Amino acid sequence: MTIETVSEVNSHGGVQGVYRHASSSTGTDMAFSLFVPEHEPGARLPVLWYLSGLTCTHANVTEKGEYRAACAEHGIIFIAPDTSPRGEGVPDDADGAWDFGLGAGFYVDATEEPWAANYRMWSYVTSELPGLVAEHFPVDLERQAITGHSMGGHGALTVALRHPGWFRSVSAFAPIVAPGQVPWGEKALGNYLGPDRLPWRAHDAVALIEDGARLDELLVDVGDADPFFERELKPELLERACAGAGMALTLRRQPGYDHSYYFISTFMADHIRWHAEHLNR
Amino acid sequence: MTIETVSEVNSHGGVQGVYRHASSSTGTDMAFSLFVPEHEPGARLPVLWYLSGLTCTHANVTEKGEYRAACAEHGIIFIAPDTSPRGEGVPDDADGAWDFGLGAGFYVDATEEPWAANYRMWSYVTSELPGLVAEHFPVDLERQAITGHSMGGHGALTVALRHPGWFRSVSAFAPIVAPGQVPWGEKALGNYLGPDRLPWRAHDAVALIEDGARLDELLVDVGDADPFFERELKPELLERACAGAGMALTLRRQPGYDHSYYFISTFMADHIRWHAEHLNR
Repeated sequence: MTIETVSEVNSHGGVQGVYRHASSSTGTDMAFSLFVPEHEPGARLPVLWYLSGLTCTHANVTEKGEYRAACAEHGIIFIAPDTSPRGEGVPDDADGAWDFGLGAGFYVDATEEPWAANYRMWSYVTSELPGLVAEHFPVDLERQAITGHSMGGHGALTVALRHPGWFRSVSAFAPIVAPGQVPWGEKALGNYLGPDRLPWRAHDAVALIEDGARLDELLVDVGDADPFFERELKPELLERACAGAGMALTLRRQPGYDHSYYFISTFMADHIRWHAEHLNR
Repeated sequence: MTIETVSEVNSHGGVQGVYRHASSSTGTDMAFSLFVPEHEPGARLPVLWYLSGLTCTHANVTEKGEYRAACAEHGIIFIAPDTSPRGEGVPDDADGAWDFGLGAGFYVDATEEPWAANYRMWSYVTSELPGLVAEHFPVDLERQAITGHSMGGHGALTVALRHPGWFRSVSAFAPIVAPGQVPWGEKALGNYLGPDRLPWRAHDAVALIEDGARLDELLVDVGDADPFFERELKPELLERACAGAGMALTLRRQPGYDHSYYFISTFMADHIRWHAEHLNR
């Protein structure tokens, strides 16, 4: 598999790159960003995946996430995929809404038309992209961690819960924890996966835990001034599910913080430090 | 003087705001961003001014500058003004070029038409805005520092050289050090100040030092892969002027770094730490 270098820029002692490739999962070109800190020649480094939220591309966290200093300090590669297929011929929300379609792939493989051909973000982030980065970058896939924001927090939690051996640590910023129970998720899963709600449970962190999936521990930050807190995020549902399952959850309601990158960047270094403890032990 | 709050968001323990006000200097509305870290009630905090480069508004450094963590750690207020007047009726470069006119005020008070009415960024950043922020925010104007990028590095150096008692420390990222000797500067100063080059010297850091202006010390970072290094920045001219004047200059040519916020953000915390040593001593 070949990749095209869109840009590579020195930053915080390492190289912040943006790359593009033809994706077999989505049938489109896909772009992602990847930061490689300074390292010994020949070394392979642990990796932190960051799945982005609604409307984002790789660029939002790359520009505003403030992760490079901490990744440089701890020697961690940071990868940020896009959030959906894009390009001519890729279907979008009929009304052009920002919560479905382009920028809103929800990290599922769609089974419904017209989405099934391109909207295969589950396969993309769990299979194709890991293979691609392992081929082209000095990543150590034995040492992976994952995090994400909002829709991407949903992605991080569901990918990790369904692959419990893959990630040494899992965290999220303001995640959608129960898409099957909130408007954003009901719209997306209903369109991508169809009206039968049973298959939705494989893409719903709370349902996965209820159905027996387990992780050693979770770190979740959410701002208590997040405008989506009550309607879309509902962290109390994750709290209840983890309590019921005896799963360790550190859920921090951050006072006065909202849903933006001003919130994410505030706690990014803290999450990276926590992942580093697991990745470098 | 009244100001309008455009937005205030919690970040890194403090509040990142964006504000707008009717400027008497420029005859337009002007926006600026200002970060106030967490502090004791009633305390007045030292302030770091950041003047931005060509094409920028306050937003670029606010989103990509990675200054909040360090300002929170050291208790420093960070202020980022806009780079020019904007709005209907404000004249722009005849060809719409990005190196003159909107986004390119060059921190001078224009004397030439049609620029003189609105392009008064010198008065704005040296007089009007300091007065405004002192009225509305807990700044301690006895403890000020200044920095800037590119055109804003030019602004920081010239403002400081002409007001040597105002700032406890002065730094710059990839500054235009001798606008009178480079294409960007010749175009801007020629249009704003007219063809007579004598008045240009008051807005040229190298000329100011040659003409006797002094600062205790300067910290300057510039990437040696900066595409504007040789043609527009010419840090060797500052080096020579400081050597001739016996002025302490720490000029660091950062290997492989370019002109972007990936460069600035890499060294931002370092500059803030250095300013903090002067502001908090």
